[in-house]
Amino acid sequence: MNHQHSICLGDIHAAAERIRRLIHRTPVMTCATIDALAGRSVYFKCENFQKTGSFKYRGASNAVQLLDESQARHGVVTHSSGNHAQALALAAKVRGIPARVVMPRNASAVKQAAVRAYGAELFLCEPNLTAREQAAAEVLARFGGTLIPPFDHPDIIAGQGTAALELLEEVPALDAVIVPVGGGGMLSGWCLAAKGMKPGIQVFGAEPRGADDAARSKAAGTWLPQTDPRTIADGLLTSLGKLTWPIIRDQVDAIYTVSDAEILSAMHLVWERMKLVIEPSAAVGVAVVLSESFRQLPGLTSVGVVLCGGNLEIPPLGSPRDQERQSS
Amino acid sequence: MNHQHSICLGDIHAAAERIRRLIHRTPVMTCATIDALAGRSVYFKCENFQKTGSFKYRGASNAVQLLDESQARHGVVTHSSGNHAQALALAAKVRGIPARVVMPRNASAVKQAAVRAYGAELFLCEPNLTAREQAAAEVLARFGGTLIPPFDHPDIIAGQGTAALELLEEVPALDAVIVPVGGGGMLSGWCLAAKGMKPGIQVFGAEPRGADDAARSKAAGTWLPQTDPRTIADGLLTSLGKLTWPIIRDQVDAIYTVSDAEILSAMHLVWERMKLVIEPSAAVGVAVVLSESFRQLPGLTSVGVVLCGGNLEIPPLGSPRDQERQSS
Repeated sequence: MNHQHSICLGDIHAAAERIRRLIHRTPVMTCATIDALAGRSVYFKCENFQKTGSFKYRGASNAVQLLDESQARHGVVTHSSGNHAQALALAAKVRGIPARVVMPRNASAVKQAAVRAYGAELFLCEPNLTAREQAAAEVLARFGGTLIPPFDHPDIIAGQGTAALELLEEVPALDAVIVPVGGGGMLSGWCLAAKGMKPGIQVFGAEPRGADDAARSKAAGTWLPQTDPRTIADGLLTSLGKLTWPIIRDQVDAIYTVSDAEILSAMHLVWERMKLVIEPSAAVGVAVVLSESFRQLPGLTSVGVVLCGGNLEIPPLGSPRDQERQSS
Repeated sequence: MNHQHSICLGDIHAAAERIRRLIHRTPVMTCATIDALAGRSVYFKCENFQKTGSFKYRGASNAVQLLDESQARHGVVTHSSGNHAQALALAAKVRGIPARVVMPRNASAVKQAAVRAYGAELFLCEPNLTAREQAAAEVLARFGGTLIPPFDHPDIIAGQGTAALELLEEVPALDAVIVPVGGGGMLSGWCLAAKGMKPGIQVFGAEPRGADDAARSKAAGTWLPQTDPRTIADGLLTSLGKLTWPIIRDQVDAIYTVSDAEILSAMHLVWERMKLVIEPSAAVGVAVVLSESFRQLPGLTSVGVVLCGGNLEIPPLGSPRDQERQSS
């Protein structure tokens, strides 16, 4: 255990207890086809089935539940174009407090509608980080409340780690876990949880090659920001944070990167063979476990992969192909 | 219980015991969004997670396991362009016997490849029922073996009914179940199982409006064939069979029909909100539970719906929309 970090295994156990009745204990699934392709047993933790469609609901619930009454009364604020916004909106609704979410003006109508449907108040801003931070500061100044950032916060990190506890309870034999990394909230939480539960386990980050700041930072031994990210994995565009980077630097065994083509191919495989809708960011871990370089790693009989979310816009289905007239 | 039919509850219990270690006991899932839209609690039996991607593996396994040694040695034969072909191929492989499958020449490359991947020998024929039956007869004459039809067979019906036993064991409070109907193997098996376990339960068929022979037959009180079916639900194109029709006539409470637009909309909802890949035929039951006419039915607090399969060709994913550069 590494006590110089912002959180420890005890915080994750406490988070698990705190949010147990609020979240789904998501299933662990397997797929013989993927086992054959990966050359080992792969256990998928299905956080695409988590409430609001991603693991983000764990951290958001933990953070919202930890507010004291006087804080809670004034509500919560965040800026996010993605899964954290929906997660925080529902977590606030469940506690019965206001949520105010700053989103970039170009966020998809579906995402805006989802956040509103969970009862949050939406504030649109220009689509850049400066505008978002400024808009969030204005909302805080005007309404009060507590800023709950998407990943770089001890309560968020602890909440995300709870899924790793569940996976290891269910599959204690795991030799390694593979966790997608954007800002690093999930990866750092999983790392502290998994290594806390089972010190010998290996923890790997999975990153799109077009947003590989974690891989570059690990290689350089120093925090390097992500500029101009280009990947279809739109949940993994951000740089690591002040809290997440030291945990990843000190405890994560390695970061593997994959191309967008590998991500799309892995996503297609999971849809087609596992019948699971996952978003591109969730396919990044699948692409790593299928990659030649990961397949070559010795000594990993059983590997866990988190399918972190399933939120994406599904185009209208239809335009049936030539229908076969004879069936079954 | 109705003893004039070809099978009874005891056959279904025996099938369940026989195939228990061969099949997946599939999960039952729920969705708060769909409950709200349906106006009641809906429990989804996820046969899209069944081996080979559909419920068909239950019946095929039961039929193959029931062959005696001298029959089994000569293998099994069927003609099918769909899920039954894959199911029979794997069931035969598991028993270690040959499977020979007649498929129409225009069956998709993916389906042909899937059947071959399960180790079956493929025979292509012209895409019409006469050519298929003739090709199957030729294969039988040449190689011997046992014809295992896709639905109109007592062992198939009994096998399909086992999923209903599992669902009622897990959710005994169900007031009704909704089951898609093509040839009627699943609907008749589910009906015998559900009414056998719980005599008061209501059993409804779900049928595409463009292939509504079951609804028309029930209304007429006499078997009417399906001619020129037109629907995206390509697993539900066939007419009822000699064994399935009397069960459906005597025991099914009603057949509800839905349009292809309703089917596609239900399929989209399940993909987007439940994160489950289901095929159009599986969406037919979902469309019924969401339909205004079904919503009006009184006294149904808890309803089971079978998601019968998840096999469809998923187009290559990609052509990412404008990616947002700021995330989580």
